[in-house]
Amino acid sequence: MPDGDQNSAVQDQSTDLQDNAPGRYQSPSGVTGTQVVRLPGMQTDSGYTFQELEISYMTLGRLSPRRDNAILICHALSGNAHVAGISPNSGRPGWWDFHVGPGRSIDTNRYFVICSNVIGGCNGSTGPTSLNPETGQPWRMHFPPVTIRDMVRAQTRLIDHLGIETLFAAIGGSMGGMQSMVWGVDYPERVRYVVPIASCMAHSAMQIAFNEVGRQAIISDPQWNKGNYSSDAKPDTGLAVARMMGHVTYLSEFSMDKKFGRRIQRPAEPEDIFPDFYRVESYLKHQGHSFVERFDPNSYLYITKALDRFELFAESQTEVETKLARVGAGFLVVSFDSDWLYPPSQSRELTRMLKKAGKQVSYVNLQTPYGHDSFLIYNVEFSRILKGYLNNRYQRLSALETAS
Amino acid sequence: MPDGDQNSAVQDQSTDLQDNAPGRYQSPSGVTGTQVVRLPGMQTDSGYTFQELEISYMTLGRLSPRRDNAILICHALSGNAHVAGISPNSGRPGWWDFHVGPGRSIDTNRYFVICSNVIGGCNGSTGPTSLNPETGQPWRMHFPPVTIRDMVRAQTRLIDHLGIETLFAAIGGSMGGMQSMVWGVDYPERVRYVVPIASCMAHSAMQIAFNEVGRQAIISDPQWNKGNYSSDAKPDTGLAVARMMGHVTYLSEFSMDKKFGRRIQRPAEPEDIFPDFYRVESYLKHQGHSFVERFDPNSYLYITKALDRFELFAESQTEVETKLARVGAGFLVVSFDSDWLYPPSQSRELTRMLKKAGKQVSYVNLQTPYGHDSFLIYNVEFSRILKGYLNNRYQRLSALETAS
Repeated sequence: MPDGDQNSAVQDQSTDLQDNAPGRYQSPSGVTGTQVVRLPGMQTDSGYTFQELEISYMTLGRLSPRRDNAILICHALSGNAHVAGISPNSGRPGWWDFHVGPGRSIDTNRYFVICSNVIGGCNGSTGPTSLNPETGQPWRMHFPPVTIRDMVRAQTRLIDHLGIETLFAAIGGSMGGMQSMVWGVDYPERVRYVVPIASCMAHSAMQIAFNEVGRQAIISDPQWNKGNYSSDAKPDTGLAVARMMGHVTYLSEFSMDKKFGRRIQRPAEPEDIFPDFYRVESYLKHQGHSFVERFDPNSYLYITKALDRFELFAESQTEVETKLARVGAGFLVVSFDSDWLYPPSQSRELTRMLKKAGKQVSYVNLQTPYGHDSFLIYNVEFSRILKGYLNNRYQRLSALETAS
Repeated sequence: MPDGDQNSAVQDQSTDLQDNAPGRYQSPSGVTGTQVVRLPGMQTDSGYTFQELEISYMTLGRLSPRRDNAILICHALSGNAHVAGISPNSGRPGWWDFHVGPGRSIDTNRYFVICSNVIGGCNGSTGPTSLNPETGQPWRMHFPPVTIRDMVRAQTRLIDHLGIETLFAAIGGSMGGMQSMVWGVDYPERVRYVVPIASCMAHSAMQIAFNEVGRQAIISDPQWNKGNYSSDAKPDTGLAVARMMGHVTYLSEFSMDKKFGRRIQRPAEPEDIFPDFYRVESYLKHQGHSFVERFDPNSYLYITKALDRFELFAESQTEVETKLARVGAGFLVVSFDSDWLYPPSQSRELTRMLKKAGKQVSYVNLQTPYGHDSFLIYNVEFSRILKGYLNNRYQRLSALETAS
């Protein structure tokens, strides 16, 4: 567990919310729960037709009479629908409690916030651990390969179900940012503002490479057994290694040196295979092992591959221009200076493309030292920018609606 | 295998020598072999006393009558004694054939070049795969933990054996750079010039973290079996994953994008678990699987831990100053702009420390785009700098010797 007073997590900018021990953190949203809804099916990009979908989601705040205040928050690789408030199951806060809640930058006194688990995931929405209705058995590796666009398509079903025609905003970090961009580009009539944070239009070879190493760690684990593992013999070691490596890529040299440096965890013990057991080694082991308790290895394969295959624009230049011309949303693009996994250059590329197409776009590169993880860590400047952007646009929208 | 005409490897700056297929590369050193010598033992930093050591080494060129032209080249994590020339076993060139040989920057017409496999390694020198004389069985995980200083101590035995009192230079990249620094600091009378390349005085938390993920991949492989694997059931998958991850950290975003981009390797095949099998995925698999044929998993554990535990200076400030005061060698410190694993900041820190202590030190940060791997890739500027530095100093030394 990292340093720091857990009760002052909002003040401690270096504390990751998910690191809080149960009961050690107060949320202004109180205890919040997710629910699962069955929705009309859809066809995936791969051509498979789901007859119906199960989607795990959470809403916070109230939909306005004009139905104009809905904000969809899209989660990243290891996230889930529990975006804010304390989980009644784990006692831990939602992954973006810093930003979402009464009085937070995404103020649930004003906005109706929705967060759903992606399809292909393992936290309540249809995914490899769900039962295949045709066989009555879990899908496992027979689950159709899903794409980021499929995840968004499933979200549109949920938004329909909630009676919302147009989202006020789609917001997300990392993989969540990809989803928000798809909302903006593929559903131009259904979203007013798009906020992709620490994200990109397509993975580079290096981003694919890191994901592939994680996948190899899982499928090389003999317990993976081509995906047919039992719940008491999962490929936990492979998934833990994948997560440990992922975790290193989410941090920065600075944040790791600050958190751990070369500090030794404890005096040598007989079971140590080498002298000098470093604190960072202990932390990574903990991260790896706690992840396997909450994540499905097959899901990890599906979602990382969806990330790697994502291309916001895969068409010819002319088609891209046609597609861009239809985009009506305003964009707030956010990157973090120390993020070497999703470097600012990728966010700038998106910004340039949108600007060139004459879109409304604001770009901010924040000087946080925490690497890719910065999007999950409280940062007062980030919070103020997000709040200002949303509130300013929402006031403008309300004024327009009142006038019309 | 990477792109490019293999016959013009020296011209193609992006080609890693080790990627050359057997017989596809001509070396000016011709076919060269390594030999193994038994040397007087030593006590390790951990307190274990080896009664004798076996050291695998290669020499190139001839020792001058004055014995003043010996250059020790120290290899990195996965290197070996075969520094230049074509191996009679593999048909492949030595790992630094670009820089070492007749007419190369380390010209074997002028210098007597020595390269030995580190202890703890698995390429001929005493290591975990060697027989423990007390048991007659391979050491495996009972091998004493070795340090970078132990590796250098073993090299001093070899240098003694070769009748060399003072090395003209100790040169190495990455872990080899650490060894060269130990020569300069711990054996101030025995080396005239030290050239640490893409190296550091101590691993940061991030460098430890990446190594730890690699170690976890190996020890999590059930075939590791606490180090007691048989030769036909080694923890190959764990070692392959460790190598794949290592490989990603050795490259740069630029070099990976240039080499692979988002190119698909081949049309989908029935055994693919997902659509879109990227070229970079295929490359990593190849790297991982070819590595297990030439490297011992236990050695990987020992050597990465030695890297993590290395501290050029672990003493109090006063003791460091005393130690530094004794350093007589001149230093050429080299880093590469795109190396994010051993970033230039680490080389600058060493340079500053040496300058502050009034030592002769030159520092060059080269603008290559190939990441940490840059030290293994031909680069005309690097080659010219190395050649100029060595030849200039050697001429000066020769003039002094002639005058005296």
